Amino acid sequence: MNQPSNFSTVLIPKALLKKGEQTRASILIEALAIANMDGLQGLTIAGVAQRCAMSKSGVFSHFGSREELQIAVVQEYHRCFQAAVFTPAMQAKAGLPRLQALFDNWVVEVTQEVDVGSIYISGAVEFDEREGPVRDALVYSIVTWQAALVRAARAAALKGHLLADLDAEQLVFEIHALILALHHDARFLRKIMSQTRAKMGFERLIKNYSP
Amino acid sequence: MNQPSNFSTVLIPKALLKKGEQTRASILIEALAIANMDGLQGLTIAGVAQRCAMSKSGVFSHFGSREELQIAVVQEYHRCFQAAVFTPAMQAKAGLPRLQALFDNWVVEVTQEVDVGSIYISGAVEFDEREGPVRDALVYSIVTWQAALVRAARAAALKGHLLADLDAEQLVFEIHALILALHHDARFLRKIMSQTRAKMGFERLIKNYSP
Repeated sequence: MNQPSNFSTVLIPKALLKKGEQTRASILIEALAIANMDGLQGLTIAGVAQRCAMSKSGVFSHFGSREELQIAVVQEYHRCFQAAVFTPAMQAKAGLPRLQALFDNWVVEVTQEVDVGSIYISGAVEFDEREGPVRDALVYSIVTWQAALVRAARAAALKGHLLADLDAEQLVFEIHALILALHHDARFLRKIMSQTRAKMGFERLIKNYSP
Repeated sequence: MNQPSNFSTVLIPKALLKKGEQTRASILIEALAIANMDGLQGLTIAGVAQRCAMSKSGVFSHFGSREELQIAVVQEYHRCFQAAVFTPAMQAKAGLPRLQALFDNWVVEVTQEVDVGSIYISGAVEFDEREGPVRDALVYSIVTWQAALVRAARAAALKGHLLADLDAEQLVFEIHALILALHHDARFLRKIMSQTRAKMGFERLIKNYSP
């Protein structure tokens, strides 16, 4: 499977992109907006063409098939997620401060997504039974992200910030659980306390796994 | 909104139902199977008619519209969920044993649903932005269930099994979080350890909130 090799779409100024790359980046932005609203399954070449005021064949010249477009959207989402959540957390000191920053940034990201939806969370429901490369791309993204969290938790244990015999995968399961509940209660039940509840849960979790 | 007033479809032997009620119950069972597979949005009168080997007008004579059928499916799911998870837990002693039974039964239910999907969880994603009576019926079901859990947690605190100043809604937020993560990791990521992780999380949670 092709993986995003850099953050060009997010980080390189548009002026530095060639014309074709600019068009591709613009199509992707619109496709991402559609997928946020209607899910990855709601994404069609025709719908994207209409939104970009382009012909279908114009979109086809950048993405050879609907599936290719869906995969590109998953990769673009992953790239944006990394740029918003992962990369800035790397500024925090290794150990618990970095794990805390990863969680805090994730909460901010999910809270912003309450209005637009999360491709990771809705995609997991859409593709739980659908096999194929779109599912594979989604699973790859989520597994990559969970592995980064496990590394951060292990580093916190090595630094003595968390228990030496920490089950890092269990901790990450429970952190992810809080994020899913935040998303569910804020977006579906529209409860205003959800962000506070997720943060309280994390605080208790860390206290619990501290030496 | 009409709420299920009893558990007739689940508990009353088919022989005791009148012919019309039997047909309605049979249609609902097939509709529930479709909704489990394709989501509530995948439910159509035509699809149900085909699955029941009936005419569309035959289905229409029991459910006046697609929306009415979707709502009936949500209520039927709620009824089955109560019969499988809530009612048997009432046999356990009030307090922590009953809260534990509610969680244990819920884990069993979600684990069985790993193959067929959960209408609560997929419905929450399908209807997070769609307004209307189907969404209302889903929200009502989930809120009713969460309220039952909050009552059980408060009873456990009153009995002295959990902290006297317990924030029961926080505890239920965290219990629900574990269930969502179990469903996500088992159904989407297909991880085999998910049930164990959810149970370990619950155990730690209860220890944490114990006097």
